[in-house]
Amino acid sequence: MKKNAPTNYVVHPLIEGRWSPRAFEDQPISEQQIRSIFEAARWSPSSRNEQPWRFIVASRLSHPKEFKNILTALDESNQGWAVRASMLAVSFAKKDFEHDNSVNSHSWYDVGLATAQMTVQASQFGISIHQMAGFDEAKIRADFKVPDNYEAIVSMALGFVGNPKTLSPELEKRERAPRVREPQTAFVFGKRWKSPFVS
Amino acid sequence: MKKNAPTNYVVHPLIEGRWSPRAFEDQPISEQQIRSIFEAARWSPSSRNEQPWRFIVASRLSHPKEFKNILTALDESNQGWAVRASMLAVSFAKKDFEHDNSVNSHSWYDVGLATAQMTVQASQFGISIHQMAGFDEAKIRADFKVPDNYEAIVSMALGFVGNPKTLSPELEKRERAPRVREPQTAFVFGKRWKSPFVS
Repeated sequence: MKKNAPTNYVVHPLIEGRWSPRAFEDQPISEQQIRSIFEAARWSPSSRNEQPWRFIVASRLSHPKEFKNILTALDESNQGWAVRASMLAVSFAKKDFEHDNSVNSHSWYDVGLATAQMTVQASQFGISIHQMAGFDEAKIRADFKVPDNYEAIVSMALGFVGNPKTLSPELEKRERAPRVREPQTAFVFGKRWKSPFVS
Repeated sequence: MKKNAPTNYVVHPLIEGRWSPRAFEDQPISEQQIRSIFEAARWSPSSRNEQPWRFIVASRLSHPKEFKNILTALDESNQGWAVRASMLAVSFAKKDFEHDNSVNSHSWYDVGLATAQMTVQASQFGISIHQMAGFDEAKIRADFKVPDNYEAIVSMALGFVGNPKTLSPELEKRERAPRVREPQTAFVFGKRWKSPFVS
């Protein structure tokens, strides 16, 4: 199933084709693929080149214990479908700068930059990444011994898009629902706030 | 000048070739190009599909007043080279959710996702985006009448890479310096924190 963005202006196919599925094929992500996906994160820019991103990742087949640790930290509504993802991951931001331990106000932002580069690289392989903001952070912290100066940001399901009919009727409906976004006039401004940009 | 990332694993050319130059050509960004760049931001995922990203953007040639407003809010060390960018922009995050005004903890993160999609789309056109975390937020807020429930995140210079010799000797040296990143073992973990992921 494809679900290309109904764009008003042309965008690259890797961006046009990105979406967040819940139905996954039973197909593993290869070593080379997951390494390239994290390599894309690695070469992201960051404030002071701090590289505040960290990831924990587990394969359903190769790391069943860690996969289950992440799975059971997800919101219950997500566990039913995420159990079939090829991999689960959690992202973290380092709260403080390495050089002077001051607060890095851009740490979450920088992890966002890195994660979007992951989704682009994943798209090249036909792999989708479904990010989830809601999950049990305390459980993740305990299970994986996360230090206090790191914050958990999102959990992610990674895999190849599957058949929506494998989902519950409710989720199948959401899987097939059109993708919607505000137009550029709502968020790209020119002369002042709320004044749409005009070239 | 190209400055591809010295990757350990293959990544897509649009990611491999992305970097943050200071030397820019005197070449305008077209209407279609800037629209496609923001369209890439538009189709980013976000928590609850809130789309908390906002941008103010100004062209050096078409919007000299707004361009100068952004330019003079940059750190002095950046104004010297950013004055030759084709466009300058500032990104913002909406702090609260639309549906219940509660705090959106993922707003900065989501603007990061959207901005990375912009950089990928820009790369397709040969356009570079140099993000800057440091700038005078109060000046931007005043000049563009930014509401209190939005936070400014980064300023950006957009344009086509130019000749490093147009820079000061100090900046030319930085422009030609190799790109460096921590290896994946430093940020991709498996069984527990700091334990490098093994497939």
